[in-house]
Amino acid sequence: MKFTKMQGTGNDFIVIDCMERENKDLKQLAPKLCNRHFGIGADGIIMILPSASEDIKMRIINSDGSEAEMCGNGIRCFAKYIYTRGIINKEKIRVETLAGTIVPEIIFKNGKPDMVKVDMGEPRLKRSDIPMEGPEGEVINEPLYLDGIEYRITCVSMGNPHCVIFIDDINAIPIKEIGPGIENHKLFPQKTNVEFIQVLNQGEIKMKVWERGAGETLACGTGACASGVASYLNKKTGRRIIVHLPGGDLLVEWMDDNHIYMTGPAEEVFTGEIIL
Amino acid sequence: MKFTKMQGTGNDFIVIDCMERENKDLKQLAPKLCNRHFGIGADGIIMILPSASEDIKMRIINSDGSEAEMCGNGIRCFAKYIYTRGIINKEKIRVETLAGTIVPEIIFKNGKPDMVKVDMGEPRLKRSDIPMEGPEGEVINEPLYLDGIEYRITCVSMGNPHCVIFIDDINAIPIKEIGPGIENHKLFPQKTNVEFIQVLNQGEIKMKVWERGAGETLACGTGACASGVASYLNKKTGRRIIVHLPGGDLLVEWMDDNHIYMTGPAEEVFTGEIIL
Repeated sequence: MKFTKMQGTGNDFIVIDCMERENKDLKQLAPKLCNRHFGIGADGIIMILPSASEDIKMRIINSDGSEAEMCGNGIRCFAKYIYTRGIINKEKIRVETLAGTIVPEIIFKNGKPDMVKVDMGEPRLKRSDIPMEGPEGEVINEPLYLDGIEYRITCVSMGNPHCVIFIDDINAIPIKEIGPGIENHKLFPQKTNVEFIQVLNQGEIKMKVWERGAGETLACGTGACASGVASYLNKKTGRRIIVHLPGGDLLVEWMDDNHIYMTGPAEEVFTGEIIL
Repeated sequence: MKFTKMQGTGNDFIVIDCMERENKDLKQLAPKLCNRHFGIGADGIIMILPSASEDIKMRIINSDGSEAEMCGNGIRCFAKYIYTRGIINKEKIRVETLAGTIVPEIIFKNGKPDMVKVDMGEPRLKRSDIPMEGPEGEVINEPLYLDGIEYRITCVSMGNPHCVIFIDDINAIPIKEIGPGIENHKLFPQKTNVEFIQVLNQGEIKMKVWERGAGETLACGTGACASGVASYLNKKTGRRIIVHLPGGDLLVEWMDDNHIYMTGPAEEVFTGEIIL
């Protein structure tokens, strides 16, 4: 089976062209293929499929074999592949996903396809939307107590829950100790992702992320969006910011239509062939 | 650049054929190529080179760009590749390495090349050979104290230091807590690898390994050999044992010539091409 390995801000995928023939066994094969010592190694598998209603269809299989509805880093890789391989010759590609139609846009630099911009939808701020325990309302700069220490949190849902905490020095935070405590805090019945943010200026923040169920990762697209929203709501930045993550940079824009647009890299790493 | 990804008991390598032309930049490229999110992903790079004195030459570059003298898992992958690709048509291949000439042997199963057997050299038991502090002599079932707890240790050098500890239940040991304490214990001036061993019977042991500088890994070839020696010296097994590791099984034999022979798997995972 031929494949292409791609990554976006360090989130990496095995991209498989299933336009001619769908491999029905990929869910079952995912744990083996994604294993980083015994297989190809990846966070997930992206399947390229024909769509009856849109330009093309994407499916994302996680490394454990489960299927993801959508992935901000994954769809950038998908769009870049589709465009550079000439599968769809449009700069804005309508993609059928389990989360509905997503329209990634190829951004050009010196006439060459470079970054990909994706509409990440509208942020939701109500406690019940996060979801979060307590009386209805928004959670902006409110106290959360963990092991007797007070943290000021701002909570945002981008389809999944995020708890954003501003700190003075991102390198001083013991994320592996605090992350799990907040992820599993009783305030969050479905647990939460946790973003630690150091504000650099009105247009730039640094972020470290503790992902729900995954621990510390190199990047989290929805987390970057939630952090952009939280930064604006706390009057720390404007509505258009660069988010510096361990895996690279993302541009997050909160537009007048209330949608969050995220622009970031998507790179082909290598091509390969594996005998199944 | 074309490459082949191989693994032996979970220790994985990017194999690059440099018979025609050596890539002088591989040491510098190693950190990027071996990165598991931004590159191909591997524990190291194996270079296949012509030799002036032997059948062929192997160089192993670690993921940090440093060069390893030898690697028990790596040379199995090297030998299997050389033989199956028809580069050298001999079952015993004389390989020039930084640790001298090594002669891996292809073992056949149903007429097909399967495992690879490697002479891992002679074990050394003297304290000064490990090296270890204290009066000269062998360290077989001696006490070591860590955080007020007594461990019974047997120490063996296979060119690198190993501290072997027998325990009743390998799954009950908090290796991430005890491992670093023993690795950095003042008894070991050059630090040490640590092997936790559960004896199953006269011919089988289970092993978990804490590798010096690397932490818990799926397998350690020299550690399996040292554990075989320690098991025999403590009268727990014979001289020929199967070592069950998290990454797979290795056969360890302490022969009459005092050499340790290790036999284990080497598998091709996929082929690929990366643009440098």
